[in-house]
Amino acid sequence: MSYEREPTVQGGVSLPRGFRAGAARAGIRADVDKLDVGLLYSEVPCAAAAVYTSNRVKAAPLLVCQEHLADGRAQAVVANSGCANAATGEQGLADVRQMASLAAAKLGLRPSDVLVASTGVIGTLLPMERLRDGLSRIELSAAGGGDFARAIMTTDTRSKCESGRCGHEGEEYTLWAVAKGAGMIHPNMATMLCFIATDAPLAQPYVAACLREAVDASFNMIDVDSDTSTNDTVIVLANGLAGGEPIDAGHPAAGSFRAALTGCCVRLAKAIVADAEGGTKVIECTVEGAASPVDARRAAREVVRSLAVKTAVYGCDPNWGRILAAVGNSGAAMSEKKAVISISAPEGGCVHVYRQGAPLPFDEAQARACLSAREVHIRVELGLGEGAATAWGSDITEEYVRLNSAYTT
Amino acid sequence: MSYEREPTVQGGVSLPRGFRAGAARAGIRADVDKLDVGLLYSEVPCAAAAVYTSNRVKAAPLLVCQEHLADGRAQAVVANSGCANAATGEQGLADVRQMASLAAAKLGLRPSDVLVASTGVIGTLLPMERLRDGLSRIELSAAGGGDFARAIMTTDTRSKCESGRCGHEGEEYTLWAVAKGAGMIHPNMATMLCFIATDAPLAQPYVAACLREAVDASFNMIDVDSDTSTNDTVIVLANGLAGGEPIDAGHPAAGSFRAALTGCCVRLAKAIVADAEGGTKVIECTVEGAASPVDARRAAREVVRSLAVKTAVYGCDPNWGRILAAVGNSGAAMSEKKAVISISAPEGGCVHVYRQGAPLPFDEAQARACLSAREVHIRVELGLGEGAATAWGSDITEEYVRLNSAYTT
Repeated sequence: MSYEREPTVQGGVSLPRGFRAGAARAGIRADVDKLDVGLLYSEVPCAAAAVYTSNRVKAAPLLVCQEHLADGRAQAVVANSGCANAATGEQGLADVRQMASLAAAKLGLRPSDVLVASTGVIGTLLPMERLRDGLSRIELSAAGGGDFARAIMTTDTRSKCESGRCGHEGEEYTLWAVAKGAGMIHPNMATMLCFIATDAPLAQPYVAACLREAVDASFNMIDVDSDTSTNDTVIVLANGLAGGEPIDAGHPAAGSFRAALTGCCVRLAKAIVADAEGGTKVIECTVEGAASPVDARRAAREVVRSLAVKTAVYGCDPNWGRILAAVGNSGAAMSEKKAVISISAPEGGCVHVYRQGAPLPFDEAQARACLSAREVHIRVELGLGEGAATAWGSDITEEYVRLNSAYTT
Repeated sequence: MSYEREPTVQGGVSLPRGFRAGAARAGIRADVDKLDVGLLYSEVPCAAAAVYTSNRVKAAPLLVCQEHLADGRAQAVVANSGCANAATGEQGLADVRQMASLAAAKLGLRPSDVLVASTGVIGTLLPMERLRDGLSRIELSAAGGGDFARAIMTTDTRSKCESGRCGHEGEEYTLWAVAKGAGMIHPNMATMLCFIATDAPLAQPYVAACLREAVDASFNMIDVDSDTSTNDTVIVLANGLAGGEPIDAGHPAAGSFRAALTGCCVRLAKAIVADAEGGTKVIECTVEGAASPVDARRAAREVVRSLAVKTAVYGCDPNWGRILAAVGNSGAAMSEKKAVISISAPEGGCVHVYRQGAPLPFDEAQARACLSAREVHIRVELGLGEGAATAWGSDITEEYVRLNSAYTT
């Protein structure tokens, strides 16, 4: 069986075999009326892996996740919104350990089998009494994934849930993933979180390699505002209840699983960009013909990161000089005499604006039409080699500035 | 004589001995009614040096400057606004050479003794007939520096001119400098330019070393919008007419000259930030106690670059978590257990917000007062070593987005 994507239904995606989830309102922020603490649980131990922010300031829950994942195994995730538990010192670390212990006691697990994630305001302590109370009220069920997705939202305007199925010769695996994040950094809330659950029997350390590959092609290729948060975390739990031989690189279903995992992550990454604070469009930049894959990634990310490009796309301005300058600024090898740039929209229309050292005459009305679309595609061909990559970014609007400058502490 | 700063008078700063300048309106952009081509000339050949953008896309005039400065000598600069002559291919290069030849013929110089700089729209060709006509109408004078400064403005709202005097035991040197730039990148206009003239008898290659030092402490430490343009150029011309022994590292006036040069560049760099597109404040970040000077520079620049910090300062939000996250994101070695952060305003008031792993209680009204000032100082002490650096950035406002998304091509 090849890779299939399940239709996205907000909150309606069922969990893989053996997983249950739920959420409650603990009232971590007294002023926000929403679910704010969630639990994801597997009936049996999982092969697990995680990737974290590259920020040198790492929130307390990330440090505890690293400890608890030293053995490559976990069985549950407890997550909260409203408080990032970052820059909170020794007390913050003690609070994370207590949060893991509370969840472990509720589920009958060892604390070291529980992973923890937080998102929200930096520099404030978790209200442990309210958290304890909220946790005690969570009821787990196979239909609770939607509530879990909602519990981790901060400035997100919609929950983000994806799933996929994959397999090989009668063996079928299910993949479920939720993410949050309306930007790498938010008004007092700074986090991109993603949790992935699967019943596939993944071997360690193969699960970690699959996750790294999927994250590099998805979350590591998006940009809202150039700021990398202190809490970014992506976790995968694989409980193996689908049965069958452990999957590693040599397994016939390995390719199908990796495609499903990467597909889920790319769709969630695009959903984060589409829900960016103040954003009105998704800018997709594909760079081809780069001297290396690393150069292609650098160039594509820099185009979608550039404020000059973001504001031009917002204003429907076919200002290709900014795209060329961003590529030149990315550190990727390039020659303006070989580069080719085009702008298009998925609904149709493609305008070639620059070719090999010289501007091309183009129809401005058509270019503006492409740039008016909800999704704008920029293609850059560098003519130097085989490196290719795609990145996604939001545009920057007055509303972004308004949201991020509001006095909120 | 130690280093003295001359009071800044817009356009009223006189040129050093032997220098003359002037400008005209060539009409490079038919829709903009301002001086747009300028000439700076020295009666005698100068020791000269330049630094250029790090963008791999370099505008045609930069390539020609590099050729003409191969011998470390120059005698004039011709500069225009309204057209960046970037991404213009072979024709753009031919146009720069003709521009240098036209100026050389007017001044009785060899073309290779003329440097060229351009700023404005990327991807359009220079209107050579209008440029030729404008150049022919320029009248040079010792009082023409102000016109030259105005001729290189694009979205700048005011011209930026600085001067200083320095010397040693009766030898007195004068320094004059102009800059433009309302951001690293502008609506279709992408350039920071700076021209420095001095009568000091600077030896080669010492003049190049002094310039690199001054630029590293000034223009390379500012940020408006994270985008490095295709045309950034800083040029120094030293004609030696003050007389005396050539100045190199061992000369008794060397320290005084370097201080004057760096002082001029820092004031111009701050003037560029203060005139940033849509900006309302200057954010000055000083990092001390870094493990190395390089780390201090990285951390300071990342704080003033961060959109999260820029928008928080704009909104007078004492959101120190964003400052800590920016330092953590800079690549500089740091430990949140050792870092200390304070926010202050030069008019008075200093609020300590974070110390060694934990938030500090602070008076929010006082913090907001500091953040309401036209200049906001952020001090970060990392407690790891002796590295120190200061960087300056503008805030980001709705007006920045409006200016940069306007449909302008």
